[in-house]
Amino acid sequence: MTAESTQSDLTARLRSILDGQWAPTRDIVRKQIEDQQLVPRADLSLDDYRTRVLGQMKDMVGLGFPAQGFRTEHGGTGDVGGAVTAIETLGYGDLSLMVKAGVQWGLFGGAIENLGTRRHHDEYVRGLIDLDVLGCFAMTETGHGSNVQELETTATYLPETGEFEIHSPTPSARKDYIGGAAQHARYAAVFAQLVTAGPGEEPTGRGVHCFVVPLRDADGSDLPGVTTSDCGYKGGLPGVDNGRIMFDRVRIPRENLLNRYADVAEDGTYSSPIESDNRRFFTMLGTLVRGRVTVGASAGAAGRFGLALAVNYALIRRQFEVAGGDDELLLMDYRTHQRRLLPLVARAYAFALAQNEVTAELHEIQSADPDTVDPDTVRKLETKAAAIKAGHTELAARAINEAREACGGAGYMSENLLPLLRGDIDVFTTFEGDNLILTQLVAKQQLGYYADDVRELDALGWVRFVANMAKNYALEKTAARQVVQTLLDDSDEDPENSDLTHPGTQLRLLRNREEHLTSTAAARMRRAQEPDADVQAVFTDTQDHLIKVGTSHIERVVLEVFVDVIGRVDHRETRDVLKKIRNLFVYSLLEDDLGWYLMHRHVSVERAKAIRRGVNDLCGDLRPYAQTLVDAFGVPPVCLDVPMLRHG
Amino acid sequence: MTAESTQSDLTARLRSILDGQWAPTRDIVRKQIEDQQLVPRADLSLDDYRTRVLGQMKDMVGLGFPAQGFRTEHGGTGDVGGAVTAIETLGYGDLSLMVKAGVQWGLFGGAIENLGTRRHHDEYVRGLIDLDVLGCFAMTETGHGSNVQELETTATYLPETGEFEIHSPTPSARKDYIGGAAQHARYAAVFAQLVTAGPGEEPTGRGVHCFVVPLRDADGSDLPGVTTSDCGYKGGLPGVDNGRIMFDRVRIPRENLLNRYADVAEDGTYSSPIESDNRRFFTMLGTLVRGRVTVGASAGAAGRFGLALAVNYALIRRQFEVAGGDDELLLMDYRTHQRRLLPLVARAYAFALAQNEVTAELHEIQSADPDTVDPDTVRKLETKAAAIKAGHTELAARAINEAREACGGAGYMSENLLPLLRGDIDVFTTFEGDNLILTQLVAKQQLGYYADDVRELDALGWVRFVANMAKNYALEKTAARQVVQTLLDDSDEDPENSDLTHPGTQLRLLRNREEHLTSTAAARMRRAQEPDADVQAVFTDTQDHLIKVGTSHIERVVLEVFVDVIGRVDHRETRDVLKKIRNLFVYSLLEDDLGWYLMHRHVSVERAKAIRRGVNDLCGDLRPYAQTLVDAFGVPPVCLDVPMLRHG
Repeated sequence: MTAESTQSDLTARLRSILDGQWAPTRDIVRKQIEDQQLVPRADLSLDDYRTRVLGQMKDMVGLGFPAQGFRTEHGGTGDVGGAVTAIETLGYGDLSLMVKAGVQWGLFGGAIENLGTRRHHDEYVRGLIDLDVLGCFAMTETGHGSNVQELETTATYLPETGEFEIHSPTPSARKDYIGGAAQHARYAAVFAQLVTAGPGEEPTGRGVHCFVVPLRDADGSDLPGVTTSDCGYKGGLPGVDNGRIMFDRVRIPRENLLNRYADVAEDGTYSSPIESDNRRFFTMLGTLVRGRVTVGASAGAAGRFGLALAVNYALIRRQFEVAGGDDELLLMDYRTHQRRLLPLVARAYAFALAQNEVTAELHEIQSADPDTVDPDTVRKLETKAAAIKAGHTELAARAINEAREACGGAGYMSENLLPLLRGDIDVFTTFEGDNLILTQLVAKQQLGYYADDVRELDALGWVRFVANMAKNYALEKTAARQVVQTLLDDSDEDPENSDLTHPGTQLRLLRNREEHLTSTAAARMRRAQEPDADVQAVFTDTQDHLIKVGTSHIERVVLEVFVDVIGRVDHRETRDVLKKIRNLFVYSLLEDDLGWYLMHRHVSVERAKAIRRGVNDLCGDLRPYAQTLVDAFGVPPVCLDVPMLRHG
Repeated sequence: MTAESTQSDLTARLRSILDGQWAPTRDIVRKQIEDQQLVPRADLSLDDYRTRVLGQMKDMVGLGFPAQGFRTEHGGTGDVGGAVTAIETLGYGDLSLMVKAGVQWGLFGGAIENLGTRRHHDEYVRGLIDLDVLGCFAMTETGHGSNVQELETTATYLPETGEFEIHSPTPSARKDYIGGAAQHARYAAVFAQLVTAGPGEEPTGRGVHCFVVPLRDADGSDLPGVTTSDCGYKGGLPGVDNGRIMFDRVRIPRENLLNRYADVAEDGTYSSPIESDNRRFFTMLGTLVRGRVTVGASAGAAGRFGLALAVNYALIRRQFEVAGGDDELLLMDYRTHQRRLLPLVARAYAFALAQNEVTAELHEIQSADPDTVDPDTVRKLETKAAAIKAGHTELAARAINEAREACGGAGYMSENLLPLLRGDIDVFTTFEGDNLILTQLVAKQQLGYYADDVRELDALGWVRFVANMAKNYALEKTAARQVVQTLLDDSDEDPENSDLTHPGTQLRLLRNREEHLTSTAAARMRRAQEPDADVQAVFTDTQDHLIKVGTSHIERVVLEVFVDVIGRVDHRETRDVLKKIRNLFVYSLLEDDLGWYLMHRHVSVERAKAIRRGVNDLCGDLRPYAQTLVDAFGVPPVCLDVPMLRHG
């Protein structure tokens, strides 16, 4: 085999590993991006961009994956993983299209699918797949971004007419930033505080529920009582018509309550199979996890797209001279440039694999008979989805920023796409759960995962809860991950003298950090037990510690997947390259957190220096594979056909 | 005095310290921003935005500062510091206007002023102040961003007609990203390789020189041989008409060579008061330092603008509940939010003060009789300007990114300005010297500052040079900074047991790090002395080390200014608050680099933990001053009059 054919063989093998279970779906979407030139544009008005994206969505209906997000018995074709992977792959094209498709089929469709019952499936599913029914997902309010339980919009049941009255009682109750609300959506899945009274009862708040509310008539005019407005220009995503909605006592039929988890009888009697308001709320929210999975996955794809642009540029662009030669050096031959891009490429591999696992788990849970699914499995998926969403969107934003800077002036020209990617990706760290909030959520689950109802507690209740648990915090065993246990058993327990390239050592370093952080966080919270404890102050003082528990958990989980995947690769050279990537991933994580490792004596000074040197050495080792590594992402050629890559 | 009047008194005192020597100029520009609503817009076409900004420039001519950038004897009013500070202050308004004004009066005007002689001053200065002469600064080429010495455009002298022929010999010789070149500029200051032959000589390349080349006729059409094109949409700065220029054997009169440092006689004889081509090149480049100072300063202003938006938002926006209270907590009461914003506010103070000092030094040097200025002083200013440009633009980009994220969904709406600021600031890390290149430059000067001609060496020549110096690298004494020496003498030499809030201890920690890094970098480079040394490999291996030398130098210099400024503040409460800000600045720098400090045993584990705790405590200490700290920036009210701050 020639060197060249070996490289292309390696590219194909790496790509197949990254593409994973739904590789055929990825290829269908790649072809669509290529054929329809679904790349972001800088030169369209908001109106034209929105119209364009809606047209692109219509072109995708025939590809089949919009139907895959829905069960066969509801009118779909039942392949959740395929549906998520298809939207993910749009991250290799235009994120405006990805978001608008995600809102329609994932969020609006997901609410109907997962919170609705037969009557809603019959009425809406077919139409929303085909885009005859355009919808939006009206959860966030101006006054309440992340705190969904405190939404102000009300849905008051009126037994005399058998209707709900949807109302925005204050300016801060306005639904805000809602994709589709400015222009195209005819319906909204509205989250509102349900108020009802059974016969002889006082009207009672039953917590947040979801309702289908018609917004516009066939001409696109607001229906009576509905006032929509346009968010206008944003940092990016110009093809998404984000808007605002105010409701002035809008009446909807009782049947429009998505009533899978709670119902209101004609006489106003409230009923639910789940007694606790809190638990019901979180159960409903949990079914919407698909949005979070999709957002993390698409961001990851966009991050790979950005890295592919920057690495390709660094492989043709020369700068300054080599002594004794006539040619300037390739950017990629500079150590600082390698350090800028290659550790991010390594992280992109690690997170892509972890993301695939989350998609597969989501697929399994949402394809099963809902009654047979273990709630604990669901909750673990939610935590993992939150973790990977936070980590993957953060990585993508960082990678695209770095890619832009690494391309210098060329990277600032819209024709080279990086500025557009940068503007589009920015909000991914905020929507579908602000990363800071999600990271805390991960930490809280981590600290309280024994307790079934820890997620029902507010911040301070939760601090008290943790404070009162006298346990030692041991990491949850990932039983399914036999390879991890074997490697841990197989590695030297003394992290100082063990081989730092051994996956067991690497796992141990990340696990030990997480365990240390988790148990010390718990210890600090025990202060809340003291008689005159200021629980608020305890919470404030430990908040940054908690964030670190969350991020260390995210990184550990990602490494476990990476190790697991490598364990299943037979081809020697492919495995060797993946190991180098994993090593760079781990070394650069350790380097970023060397202060902590040294401060808590988890590594020695000598080892710390070896880690820093190791990052440099691994960058050098991976330099010859730079092209292969980004080719394996499989970014469609049309997306890399930009002036800076044509001329250098 | 009431608490409120004390706060407003404190605000005024802090503002006066930040505003510094050219406070009246700042106020004039602030008023202009307020009166003319000079804030960035999202809703204009490229064409309309460019026209708007040109109009705004015309409105500014009457304010007087465009004339201040030029010596009285050249047709200006001679107040360089005022001119720079005025452009800086536009960073509180619209960066498109700042950049376009900076190109016209700073870069194009600066080339005429500093590289030209009487004939150029007479011909252009008055007109370029009044905008009768619109110019651009054509240095960068498509193939050569940072490596100005290798530009490909040629200027060949033709003795038979007494003209230069300006020519772009290859596609990569195209002038690129040139502000003003797409539309408005009638003239360009073109940097090109001068080729000439005296009588009986062979044509010889004399290195890069600068020429005034007319680009367009009165109708705005390209002149014969000139082909301009438009860079179109960019990541931001929509009001700046960046473009490209190709020259096809364009003839210009011999007199259009800006001939202060070199001339070509009618017969083609080349002459220069500076013999070395390299030294002449760097001398010419050095006179253009004003652009670098201005870019750093404006970026700093924009960063403060972004922080003011985010801190104000955090002081009205509530999120989640406090146990036992009805109200949700203010965002600013969350420790994670404080940690996100307050260390950046502290850095913004530190860099603003350092920036003021650079402006004052620039003013002093460029106001003096050029023949009396010590070249060493000029070079020190160049290094410092490079250092502060790199540090300040990096800080600004980071601050605006963080500010955007800290405002969640609201931060992504263009109406709240943060996305526009984010798009505009992005390229500041690249233009007027890519930050990575500048940081290396700083490090190189640091390592070789004894040697007069170190800057004339290419990368590898320089490695060899350092390798051959057998010196110990001691930091350059900042003799003028007596207070620093006193504080050092006054502080405990044992950094472990000394008081970490003592400025002497803080100075020592940053100085020791810089000295350590500098001397170890030199030691590593000595490997290049070995007989079969691969100098290229030595350079590659030490490049990241070198970057760290540069950043540690930047941070040390900034701290020295901060300490110096505080030493001159008499008012007790003002001084106390500034000390807290300085402490947070230092603690957060140390925290970001704890790995290094521990690894090299410059702090102990116990001290490291104290630093981490200290950042939290200082955030808590400064929380009550959050409003005051950003009010003192003096961002014009119109810039903070955004929907998210009106409604919360």
